[in-house]
Amino acid sequence: MKGYFITFEGPDGAGKTTVINEVVKAIKEQCNKEILVTREPGGSKIAEKIRDLILDPRNTEMNAKTEALLYAASRSQHVSEIIEPALAAGKLVISDRFVDSSLAYQGQGRQLGIDEVAQINEFATGHLEPDLTVFLDLDPALGLKRIAQARSGSEDRLEQEKLAFHQEVYRGYQKVCQAHPDRIKRVDASQDLGQVVAASVKLVKSTFPELF
Amino acid sequence: MKGYFITFEGPDGAGKTTVINEVVKAIKEQCNKEILVTREPGGSKIAEKIRDLILDPRNTEMNAKTEALLYAASRSQHVSEIIEPALAAGKLVISDRFVDSSLAYQGQGRQLGIDEVAQINEFATGHLEPDLTVFLDLDPALGLKRIAQARSGSEDRLEQEKLAFHQEVYRGYQKVCQAHPDRIKRVDASQDLGQVVAASVKLVKSTFPELF
Repeated sequence: MKGYFITFEGPDGAGKTTVINEVVKAIKEQCNKEILVTREPGGSKIAEKIRDLILDPRNTEMNAKTEALLYAASRSQHVSEIIEPALAAGKLVISDRFVDSSLAYQGQGRQLGIDEVAQINEFATGHLEPDLTVFLDLDPALGLKRIAQARSGSEDRLEQEKLAFHQEVYRGYQKVCQAHPDRIKRVDASQDLGQVVAASVKLVKSTFPELF
Repeated sequence: MKGYFITFEGPDGAGKTTVINEVVKAIKEQCNKEILVTREPGGSKIAEKIRDLILDPRNTEMNAKTEALLYAASRSQHVSEIIEPALAAGKLVISDRFVDSSLAYQGQGRQLGIDEVAQINEFATGHLEPDLTVFLDLDPALGLKRIAQARSGSEDRLEQEKLAFHQEVYRGYQKVCQAHPDRIKRVDASQDLGQVVAASVKLVKSTFPELF
């Protein structure tokens, strides 16, 4: 792989999508690589159909293992159709969520075990790991409050989960951060947007000085 | 689990569905357990939606790992909604295909590795294994010929694969049979239907004399 792979992670409501957009605006003029911003399912038609199944609020009888396997299936297709070709073409790929989300949401939040879910995802991604992960660190209660204000009534099946679930997810993220201190860097997402973006840009530039 | 779990396996065209129907007809009067016949997706609404994705002939860009993960996801739902409740209720569950199909089709046929696919499926099924597997042993070339005669023009995505793929699947079945000689028993499926059924019934009765 000649490209660079950055992921953004964090609890619901941490502001990943907005922060990524602002980071890209801030770096794209100076960056000497083409940037591809993606999020699962990332424009892969099959990955999208899989994701529709996962997030459909009517699928209440879906068990946790099925959910984890479907995320892995969608990710496998996203990797092979979108991420790997971009990395092979030397691009800087920035993804809104990746494997760490499954470790936190399904591994810890659904109590399936972080190691078990990691194994499934290593199979799905062919062991592809980000070069840098920015963890937008936010109290999940605050994240849920932000979401409730922003999209009242239109939350998907996972956003509708109760606070206790999101706190468990947050514990999962803590464990994953501790297990990968070299790859995952924290940014305090309770700050103003400008500060969060500045801290994220600084991380990207200091990790990959050769890109600027 | 208080129930009994039997699976039928074999290459496409080996006659699994017909044989299962005839076996059930032959044993149901004498069997002291209620019998549940199922096949993936087994009437689980979610498992069915997943299977529709896998078999849709338009999904030509689906990669092999995605396919394996989707089968595992569908199976996980089939196990939790259909098979486990029936076994817990003490029934004799007979399934048309189960994990061994994925080991043969995805593990060997798609070259993903039998062990890797087994690991994914152990996660999906919570290590549920059949008590007996009847392998309907048939030359895959003969199986394909039977299918072509029976449903000319309406084969699904996997049935449309070329003979070389089905020969690889058959090699996969050979390996799985060798690895589990106590669980998997062969029946020569090139015989007349009556003989195949008789041999299968004999296997069921000799393996579980307490059921009759």
